[in-house]
Amino acid sequence: MSKTDGEYQFNQKHLLGLADYSREDILFVLEQAKYFREILDRAVPKVPTLRDKTIVNLFYENSTRTRLSFELAQKRMGADVVNFSAGSSSTKKGESLKDTIRNISSMKIDMVVVRHESPGVPHFLTNCVDAAILNAGDGAHEHPTQALLDMFTMQTIHEDLKGKKIAIIGDIAHSRVVRSNIIGLTKLGAKVVLCGPKTLMPVYVNEMGVEVSYNLEETLEWCDIAMALRIQLERQEKGTEYFPSLREYHQRFGIKLSHLEKYPDFKIMHPGPINRGVEMESEVADSDRAVILSQVTNGVAVRMAVLYLLSGGKRV
Amino acid sequence: MSKTDGEYQFNQKHLLGLADYSREDILFVLEQAKYFREILDRAVPKVPTLRDKTIVNLFYENSTRTRLSFELAQKRMGADVVNFSAGSSSTKKGESLKDTIRNISSMKIDMVVVRHESPGVPHFLTNCVDAAILNAGDGAHEHPTQALLDMFTMQTIHEDLKGKKIAIIGDIAHSRVVRSNIIGLTKLGAKVVLCGPKTLMPVYVNEMGVEVSYNLEETLEWCDIAMALRIQLERQEKGTEYFPSLREYHQRFGIKLSHLEKYPDFKIMHPGPINRGVEMESEVADSDRAVILSQVTNGVAVRMAVLYLLSGGKRV
Amino acid sequence: MSKTDGEYQFNQKHLLGLADYSREDILFVLEQAKYFREILDRAVPKVPTLRDKTIVNLFYENSTRTRLSFELAQKRMGADVVNFSAGSSSTKKGESLKDTIRNISSMKIDMVVVRHESPGVPHFLTNCVDAAILNAGDGAHEHPTQALLDMFTMQTIHEDLKGKKIAIIGDIAHSRVVRSNIIGLTKLGAKVVLCGPKTLMPVYVNEMGVEVSYNLEETLEWCDIAMALRIQLERQEKGTEYFPSLREYHQRFGIKLSHLEKYPDFKIMHPGPINRGVEMESEVADSDRAVILSQVTNGVAVRMAVLYLLSGGKRV
Repeated sequence: MSKTDGEYQFNQKHLLGLADYSREDILFVLEQAKYFREILDRAVPKVPTLRDKTIVNLFYENSTRTRLSFELAQKRMGADVVNFSAGSSSTKKGESLKDTIRNISSMKIDMVVVRHESPGVPHFLTNCVDAAILNAGDGAHEHPTQALLDMFTMQTIHEDLKGKKIAIIGDIAHSRVVRSNIIGLTKLGAKVVLCGPKTLMPVYVNEMGVEVSYNLEETLEWCDIAMALRIQLERQEKGTEYFPSLREYHQRFGIKLSHLEKYPDFKIMHPGPINRGVEMESEVADSDRAVILSQVTNGVAVRMAVLYLLSGGKRV
Repeated sequence: MSKTDGEYQFNQKHLLGLADYSREDILFVLEQAKYFREILDRAVPKVPTLRDKTIVNLFYENSTRTRLSFELAQKRMGADVVNFSAGSSSTKKGESLKDTIRNISSMKIDMVVVRHESPGVPHFLTNCVDAAILNAGDGAHEHPTQALLDMFTMQTIHEDLKGKKIAIIGDIAHSRVVRSNIIGLTKLGAKVVLCGPKTLMPVYVNEMGVEVSYNLEETLEWCDIAMALRIQLERQEKGTEYFPSLREYHQRFGIKLSHLEKYPDFKIMHPGPINRGVEMESEVADSDRAVILSQVTNGVAVRMAVLYLLSGGKRV
Repeated sequence: MSKTDGEYQFNQKHLLGLADYSREDILFVLEQAKYFREILDRAVPKVPTLRDKTIVNLFYENSTRTRLSFELAQKRMGADVVNFSAGSSSTKKGESLKDTIRNISSMKIDMVVVRHESPGVPHFLTNCVDAAILNAGDGAHEHPTQALLDMFTMQTIHEDLKGKKIAIIGDIAHSRVVRSNIIGLTKLGAKVVLCGPKTLMPVYVNEMGVEVSYNLEETLEWCDIAMALRIQLERQEKGTEYFPSLREYHQRFGIKLSHLEKYPDFKIMHPGPINRGVEMESEVADSDRAVILSQVTNGVAVRMAVLYLLSGGKRV
C-alpha cells in the first residue's frame, strides 16, 4: 500500500493541516516515518539530519506530550532548539502575533512549530515569514501530526487502510484531532463512523462525509479500530457542563472489559491523556488490545519524518 | 571608520554597559560582529567557537527577543546553555542574589547573561564570581547589547557615524535603551537629539550632553535616522497614566506615512516590540524606510561577537 | 578508604534512596565521582559519556540548584535533555502520574530525574517504566544525590569517614536531606549527632540509630563537621509558625563567629540556600571554615558519576 510512484515528488513547504495534503503526500510521509521508527528502536536512536537547522517551538497553549515529542524528535536529529511559551513572552507586552513571528524569523529560523488556541494561526504565519510552519494544534481546527501518528499506528495493525472500519468515539465537537483524522482517513479510503452523544456532535457532522452512530455496541461490533477521544474535563471547570454527565457518559460510551470479550477483534486507540473510568475502564487502557503507548512512540517517528521532509530532506 | 589600530587590544572582561567601553572597544566589537553577521547569511549559520563554554541565562524579568537572541547566538556557537528564570527559582525561597550567583558559579560556569529590574545588578555580580557577566538589561540603567545592535544597524546605513544625526523619539525617561545609545553614539561622534513630550523626558536630560526637541516635524527634517522608542503600555496598567494620552502621543510624536513623503531621507529604527498606531503608523513600520527587522538579525550577530570576545576569543 | 574490592560489581539500576545502596555501592559512586570532579577543573569540563542518551528532568516542585546541577551534569556528558515542569504539564489536565511517565517513557527515554512532593514517587515510577529513575527529592523521604555530594565533600576533609563525628543541626523533622545523610553516613561508619530544638525533631528520632543533642555548644565542641540545615521559611508563610521563633532559633542554634574561635577544628556545611543570620551568621558562611560552595561544585561531579553508572557505564 505504501508504495509511491517513482515520479512522485513531495512538494509541501508547510504542514498546516491534512486538508492541504494529497493522498500521495500522506502516504509518503507515513512511509518515510517507518525509517525513523526503526531508528527509535536502535541502541542510539539518533540521526543527525537536522544538524544545521534552527527550530523554534512556539507554544501559546499548554502541552506536555506534543511539545516533548517534537522536542525529542528535533534533538534526536541534531537541530538547535529554542522554546518559547506564551507565559514568558512579550505577547504580554501587547505585541501582535505577526510582529512576534517576524521578529523570531529575523533571527534566521528554519522551522516554527506552533500551537495556538485560534484556528488558522499556522496558516496566518506562512504569510508573515519564510520559515516552514508546522501546526501542532490550532484551536478546534487541525492537529495534523496527531492524525498522522494515528494513521501510522493503524497501518501497523492493517497495512492498507482502504476499506478499514475506524470508529471515533466521544467528544467529536470539540476535537481538532478528529477533524484531522477524518480528513486523512477519508483520503486513504478508510470508512469512518463517529460515535457519541448528540450533545457532543458538531453541527456540521452531516457535511463531513462520514457516518454517525449513537450506539456504542453497534459501533464496536462493526469497527476494526476504535479511537476514543478525550473528554475535556477542563471545559467543565469553565462552567460548560457536559450533558450527559461524566458518569452517564461512561455508562453509555465508555469502552469496558466486557466489550473486549464480546467483540474480540477491534483494537483501541486514544490520543491521551486518558481519563481512566471515563472514556474507558482503566483495565481496557492497559489491555493488550490497546495500542495507546505505541501511538506515543510512533508520534516521535512521524514528527521526525515531517521535520525531515519540511527541512528540505528528500526520500530517506 | 571601523579600522582599529594594529596595536589595539580588547581587554574587557565583562559587558556591564557602554559607559565602561572606550570608543575603540565599541568599534572593535562592531567590526567583529560583521564577521558573525556574514555567518548568519550562510546556509549553515553556525560557528563552534563556544563549544567548550557553559553559559547561564539568568532572567529575573520577562523577555522574548533578548533571551531568544542570546540563546540562539549561544547555541549557534556550540555553547552549553542553561536557562534560569525568576519564576522557577529559589529566589522564592529568599536566597540572596549573591548566594544564587555564587552557587551557580560554583557549578563551573564561564559566562552569565543577566537581566534584572534593579540597576547595577550586573556590576554587583562581578564582585561575586569569576564568570564573565553580560548585562541584558538592568532596570532603567543600561542595555548595552541593544545599543550595540542599534549602532551596528546604523553603520549599515552610514558606515561612519561621526557627525551623523540621530533622533531618539518617545519615552526617554523610562528607557535603558536610550541611555546606552546616548553613551555609545556620543563616543562614536554622532549627534543625538532626544524628542518627546516633556513628561517623558528625564530630569537629568540637560546633563546628558545631547540636544532636546519637543517638535517632531523639526526633528524628522533634521535627522538621518529616527529611532522611535517603545511606549510602555505596562506602566499604564500600574496606574501611572501617560500624559499625554496614547492617542495624543501618536498625534504629536507618532511617525506617519505623511512624514516619509515630506522628509524622504531618514531611516526608521525601533527596539521592538512596536505598538502599531502609537509610536508609528503600522504602514510606517512595514515600509522600506524601516530597518526594524534588520535590527533583530543584527542583534544575534552582535551578541555572538560579544560572547566570542568575552569568552577569550581574539580577533576573528 | 575508598578502595573497593576488585570483585565488586555495581548492580543498581536506579537511585531511589541510599537505603537501597550498600556501603560498597556508596563508596563506589563516591570513588567514581572523583574522576568527574577532576574533569570539572579542566579547561574543558566535558566528557561525552552520555552522548547517546536521552534524559527527562521531571520536576513537580520548584528547584534551582538541583535542577541546574543535574542539567549541567547531563549537558557536560553530551546527553539530550528535555525539561518538564509541573506548571506547563498535562498534570493540569488530570492525567495520572503513571500515565504521564509511561507516555514520556514511550518516547524512548533512557533516564528520568524526578522531584516530587510525595514520598515514594520515584519508587512508584520504577514499576511503570523501563528507564532508570533518579530521585531528586521526594517529599520528606530521601534526596540521595544531595547526601552523596555531602559525603563526597566530607571525604575531601577526612578521607575515611569511619568514626568521624558529624553533627547535623536544625530542622531535622522536615528534612529529606538529613534522612539520606543519616542512612549514608551510618553505612560509612560515621558517628552522627542530630542537634536542634525539640519542636524540630522528628517523632521517630529514637529509632534512627543516632544520638540527639539539644545543646549547640556541646555539639560543636564534639564534632568534626557541622552541617546546618535550612530553616524553611516557606512553612511560616503557610501559617505553621516555628517554635522557637527565627530570632530565638538563631540565638540558640545559629553558628556564630565566636564558635569558630572557640572550637577551631570543625568545618561547616549547608545544603543551601542559606538563610544568613538564621542558621549561621553571614560571616560564618563566608569564612574559610565553610565548604558550602565546594558542596555545589561537588554536586555536579557526583551527579555526573550517578548518571554515568546508571546509564550502564562501568568503572571509569
